[in-house]
Amino acid sequence: MELNIPEVVEEIRTLFERYEQALIDKDVEVLDATFWNSPLTIRAAIHENGYGFDEIHAHRVRRPPGPGIKLARRRVVITTFGRDLATVHLEFDMRGRDMPARQSQTWVRFPDVGWKVVLAQVSVTESTPAY
Amino acid sequence: MELNIPEVVEEIRTLFERYEQALIDKDVEVLDATFWNSPLTIRAAIHENGYGFDEIHAHRVRRPPGPGIKLARRRVVITTFGRDLATVHLEFDMRGRDMPARQSQTWVRFPDVGWKVVLAQVSVTESTPAY
Repeated sequence: MELNIPEVVEEIRTLFERYEQALIDKDVEVLDATFWNSPLTIRAAIHENGYGFDEIHAHRVRRPPGPGIKLARRRVVITTFGRDLATVHLEFDMRGRDMPARQSQTWVRFPDVGWKVVLAQVSVTESTPAY
Repeated sequence: MELNIPEVVEEIRTLFERYEQALIDKDVEVLDATFWNSPLTIRAAIHENGYGFDEIHAHRVRRPPGPGIKLARRRVVITTFGRDLATVHLEFDMRGRDMPARQSQTWVRFPDVGWKVVLAQVSVTESTPAY
């Protein structure tokens, strides 16, 4: 399994940047096109857990546009495995929060619909241990 | 790409349950064996971001054993894509927290070392919108 084939990494980087811009613009069409249209898709957001494309879509429609929410990127790691699987991890500063937030995505290239996010989670690192 | 081939789902379920038990027991050997031994592996935990196997391992050694931390499972979704990729999402109640916690994992079957988690995030859903 070949890791980080440069053109595959670039494909994912382009799609990832398109998605990030769509969050800022609240471009629901692009947000929807980024995620796998399946009841199996899961997006665990900061305030809710979206099970299936329909719940995720409903969250897109409800949320406000993103300017200012993501202040600055701390670190982006794109890793590709062969030509049909990729992971993306973004660590970023969020408005009003001292601790960094994280967004992780798993991308699969489907034969029929191309690259789609099948699993994602977004959350803010907590400063005080709960245990 | 065939989804949820039963024997592949069962392979992942077995490995996932072994990992959950290892969290309870603080069985560092099993925890380490579950994750891909690579600088590219990422585990965003509740209180920290682990970049690379060595950081993730250091977190395993530091953390207390798990009994009582995970009170009850709310929902487990295992999805497999072909025979070499799987995602697992666990929503669970955590001690002292009103909102559910989430653990997401991306598993890859490597030709040499078998199934390994390459990306994971654990966080607690937040009740109050930050925006």
